[in-house]
Amino acid sequence: MTFAAAVHYKAIELSRHVCRMCTEAGSGHPSSATALAHITTVLLYHTMRYDPANPWNPLSDRLVLSEGHAVPIIYAAYADVGGVVGADPKHGRKLSLDDLWTLRDIASVLDGHPNPALGFPFFDAATGSLGQGVSVAAGLALAARMDGLDKTLYCIVGDGESREGQIWEALDFIADQHLTNVRVLFNSNKMGQSDYVSPQQSAATLARKIRAYGLHPITINGHDPVAIRKALAARPPKGKPVVIIAKTQKGWGVKELQQVGYHGKPLDAKGLQAALEQLKLPARKPQDVLCPPLPRGEIPKADRQAIALADPDLVKMAEGTKFAGAVQKGKVATRQAFGLALLALGRASKRIVALDGDVSNSTFSETLRKEFPDRFVECRIAEQNMISVAAGLAAGGKIPFANTFAKFFVRAYDQIEMAANTCANLKMVGSHSGVSLGADGPSQMGVVDAAFFGSLAGVRTPKGRPGCVVLVPSDAISTIKLAALMADYEGLVYMRTLRPETAILYQPSEPFRLIGQKVLSPGKDLAIIAWGYMVHEARKAAERLKGEGIEAGLVDAYSLPLAADFLEAIGAGPGAKLLVVEDNYGGGLGSAVAAAAAQRGNIRVTSMTPRTMPKSGKTADDVLRFVGIDAGAICRRAKEFLGKA
Amino acid sequence: MTFAAAVHYKAIELSRHVCRMCTEAGSGHPSSATALAHITTVLLYHTMRYDPANPWNPLSDRLVLSEGHAVPIIYAAYADVGGVVGADPKHGRKLSLDDLWTLRDIASVLDGHPNPALGFPFFDAATGSLGQGVSVAAGLALAARMDGLDKTLYCIVGDGESREGQIWEALDFIADQHLTNVRVLFNSNKMGQSDYVSPQQSAATLARKIRAYGLHPITINGHDPVAIRKALAARPPKGKPVVIIAKTQKGWGVKELQQVGYHGKPLDAKGLQAALEQLKLPARKPQDVLCPPLPRGEIPKADRQAIALADPDLVKMAEGTKFAGAVQKGKVATRQAFGLALLALGRASKRIVALDGDVSNSTFSETLRKEFPDRFVECRIAEQNMISVAAGLAAGGKIPFANTFAKFFVRAYDQIEMAANTCANLKMVGSHSGVSLGADGPSQMGVVDAAFFGSLAGVRTPKGRPGCVVLVPSDAISTIKLAALMADYEGLVYMRTLRPETAILYQPSEPFRLIGQKVLSPGKDLAIIAWGYMVHEARKAAERLKGEGIEAGLVDAYSLPLAADFLEAIGAGPGAKLLVVEDNYGGGLGSAVAAAAAQRGNIRVTSMTPRTMPKSGKTADDVLRFVGIDAGAICRRAKEFLGKA
Repeated sequence: MTFAAAVHYKAIELSRHVCRMCTEAGSGHPSSATALAHITTVLLYHTMRYDPANPWNPLSDRLVLSEGHAVPIIYAAYADVGGVVGADPKHGRKLSLDDLWTLRDIASVLDGHPNPALGFPFFDAATGSLGQGVSVAAGLALAARMDGLDKTLYCIVGDGESREGQIWEALDFIADQHLTNVRVLFNSNKMGQSDYVSPQQSAATLARKIRAYGLHPITINGHDPVAIRKALAARPPKGKPVVIIAKTQKGWGVKELQQVGYHGKPLDAKGLQAALEQLKLPARKPQDVLCPPLPRGEIPKADRQAIALADPDLVKMAEGTKFAGAVQKGKVATRQAFGLALLALGRASKRIVALDGDVSNSTFSETLRKEFPDRFVECRIAEQNMISVAAGLAAGGKIPFANTFAKFFVRAYDQIEMAANTCANLKMVGSHSGVSLGADGPSQMGVVDAAFFGSLAGVRTPKGRPGCVVLVPSDAISTIKLAALMADYEGLVYMRTLRPETAILYQPSEPFRLIGQKVLSPGKDLAIIAWGYMVHEARKAAERLKGEGIEAGLVDAYSLPLAADFLEAIGAGPGAKLLVVEDNYGGGLGSAVAAAAAQRGNIRVTSMTPRTMPKSGKTADDVLRFVGIDAGAICRRAKEFLGKA
Repeated sequence: MTFAAAVHYKAIELSRHVCRMCTEAGSGHPSSATALAHITTVLLYHTMRYDPANPWNPLSDRLVLSEGHAVPIIYAAYADVGGVVGADPKHGRKLSLDDLWTLRDIASVLDGHPNPALGFPFFDAATGSLGQGVSVAAGLALAARMDGLDKTLYCIVGDGESREGQIWEALDFIADQHLTNVRVLFNSNKMGQSDYVSPQQSAATLARKIRAYGLHPITINGHDPVAIRKALAARPPKGKPVVIIAKTQKGWGVKELQQVGYHGKPLDAKGLQAALEQLKLPARKPQDVLCPPLPRGEIPKADRQAIALADPDLVKMAEGTKFAGAVQKGKVATRQAFGLALLALGRASKRIVALDGDVSNSTFSETLRKEFPDRFVECRIAEQNMISVAAGLAAGGKIPFANTFAKFFVRAYDQIEMAANTCANLKMVGSHSGVSLGADGPSQMGVVDAAFFGSLAGVRTPKGRPGCVVLVPSDAISTIKLAALMADYEGLVYMRTLRPETAILYQPSEPFRLIGQKVLSPGKDLAIIAWGYMVHEARKAAERLKGEGIEAGLVDAYSLPLAADFLEAIGAGPGAKLLVVEDNYGGGLGSAVAAAAAQRGNIRVTSMTPRTMPKSGKTADDVLRFVGIDAGAICRRAKEFLGKA
């Protein structure tokens, strides 16, 4: 039997499964899935070098299904080849055909969209929110190159999806980085969800765009097995990365599924019958013509070395760097301290990789760039791509630290949420956080981050961890200590650093936990709880209040989620009065403290966040005063608060 | 004096101002600004048809400075032409040269980046977070076309900025929509912040990309006044929109500013001296050669008609639509109700415009598309562009309703925050919100929206309003009533709608306020506070609890911010027990209620949000149970809560 005939048989067989899967589920996207029947068959039964019995093999080629809703066809193929699923190698089991009919069920490993964290390790990242997969594939490709591994990263993208700007950020990145080990395939089936795609998304326009981006387009019939095989193996001319534009039929094989507006619609019982009639299996069944090749080579030993840094000797760390002066003066910005920490971490472990969005001389990720240029990834001004590339690097075994202004991370909150769903081991450091940024104004200030990351901090992942840990260090010492804990911890972490220099509060030997708080000073009248820059402002306020006979304690609540015993740890019992002040909009620290307190119902909390949106101000003080959270405002609030006692 | 000589004189003069402005401010981006000296001069002194004395003239050409940090050059030109600033026409005043030296001061109207909401009405939208301006210009252009106005929308973009995917979403959109009245200029100065731009961003590559996108690139010397003037006036061949690639010198005119890494650095006193030496004004001063032409035509009367809908007659509204069956059964999804409301609003006011991201047959914005295709904007799968286009439409006097899944709005949170800073009159409706979405799984579920939008709800804009109002209607009636209030209200509003059908709770005559709550039933033991889908789940729980002798009241807390008298309004006095349950991650409703309660310190609040990240489930019930917020879980929590009393 010819290759083409064998593939064709399989494509029909898998399409039959897909139709039945979605009908049984009562939902799903059979039309997007069958469009990929031939491509999936060639990839999973011929081209990809992988081991269905061991989806954790780090040498395997990988597939990123950016067009996540088409996943039923991948599930069908994977079950057919006897692919293994499970949360980890100890809990692996073979997927069976019977599993397919559990698609989208609450107890099923076959989720509506790809997600390795739900027990489907064939994939590396949760997809389904469109436009993110090419970046993930690029990150996996970078990791492979860093490790000298011969891996090909395949990525299937929809043509409807090609309108997402991130796709083009990723293609720019692939061109910049010469990632010839990424092979992108556009599922060019002419339809989006509600309508045909526009001329901007036609196969011809896609090819023109790809050429303009400096990549090599190959346009094929997406249902021609030989053409698919050839395109997947094409050696790029002039070393350009190849992008395949596969002309496909949405709803291939089933007339009903081919109508516009049939996106995301399963067939009813009658429609399924008709579909199975149309998808008639040929008489001759393929005999072992199709078999996925195993990856070659010895599986390298995983680097599981714990990461730790010695107690920070700031003077020594800063020697010879641009931060020596600041350290001398004893006033160091946490972003400067992070730069020092990142370099130290980079020296401690080869897994540490830094990414930056063209601001490495502001975030100070440049420290790693200068010493380990091969582990620094310049992502330019394209934050969405940066985050998903980082997710790919994490899936490839790296510990990526993504860096940019806290405000610019907002550009990638969708990608970050998907990374949280993936349980990606991704670290983010948002510099210039809060309103202390001053003169640049609100378009550069990170003020919504506490709420967003706080919401992730309050939910558990499938692995039982917080969706994200949020760290807001107040000084250089805690920054370095928390950065080390952040690197060694497995999971998503976001750290806010500051633009301005601040005093050093902690001794180098002060022990820190990833999740915790520090009581800087006790106080019988009230406790002021703050983080980051506001710890210093709160200190000023506490001193002024002391002068007026009011004893305010000071707590550095540097992390979310709060520790389970937070209130006890800070000595807040019945009747306690807590004033929380943060330099970001509400939903973060104050919300968490109020929630904990309100459960008790006998602790009072007054919360201070910027009252109004900030604007430019020449000094941090100007802006703090403008938005009503400067030391003076804290004192006034404290007195009001106590007056009402 | 020739045109070129006059422009050159002005370019030097403005560059002198820019250097001094940034030096006095102690911060700023003089190098990006002087690169635009000639372009700015030709635009603001010759090409743009506008009235410096009346920046609110709706007939004027507009400039969107996407490369927001270059704003000092615009400020300098605007002051030089005697441009008017102010919060509104009643408070307008002429900008003077002396104002320039107040750049970035807390009391200055000259913010670090453009923002009309801070009193600089020459601009239409806050920019500074890069990559958003082309979309805004496209939205302004669409509004102009809808109104039959002959306006040209200019947009200046950086080459570093060209890596942002949104730029390419916008260019696809401009091509799709044939927006020939948009003229984009790339400030191609070869440098980003930390480094030279990559080959992907060179002038030649930009031209290739633009051609591939179906637009017409014109490459010029960005310091040649005649070439600039010509390119700005070029008539597009074959009706293609024109994109100008202007090769410029970053830090034009000042040697020190031309170094790599000098991005965002002001000159010190000595550097300023040297700069002014280099930027020597020619001997001959231009005499009235340059004067901005006024816009022609009679200023149309602004449509300030209040928008209101009659009490909704669901049966009548649904007649002849696909929702008639649901209404008949008395179980209507809020997304269906919104579809009906949108159509009614579209009939009530010509200002109503709907945008959608290729899911109008799921969000049901298709109702407007079918009846008023000229007021429906298909944005395809590109949410970032959709939001900023909507911001442009709002600036152009429209009332835009942007529609997509709640989860897909996360893609545009940066753009939404900028719209909040702008105080844009932008409405967003996120369908399929919360975990009740069921089978698609978390990549399609809006669960972080409450925290993000809640954080905006808790801060005041420069105009004194909430940064955003969040609406979460629980039934069809409240959806329609709140949609009408949303349309009539001036400011940012976000509504969450649901996929599944729910019961109808309110009478058509029930009065609603934009910010408020409804006590559905009183209860002496505790009050269950919920919104949206969870009101129905809470109702089930309350009924079960009643059967066990526990009287739980029920509150539909449908908006954020909470009303100032929320606790009083729901009858929560000292000793009250409140159980809050929401189908989104924390930081939203529960946080707001806990914050209000904790201020008192004598009200207990227990908050329920999804305990774990959701996954696919065939029914909404499956998923609610999986994440621990179903009626059974609510009952258990209520009993625990009371047990601890």
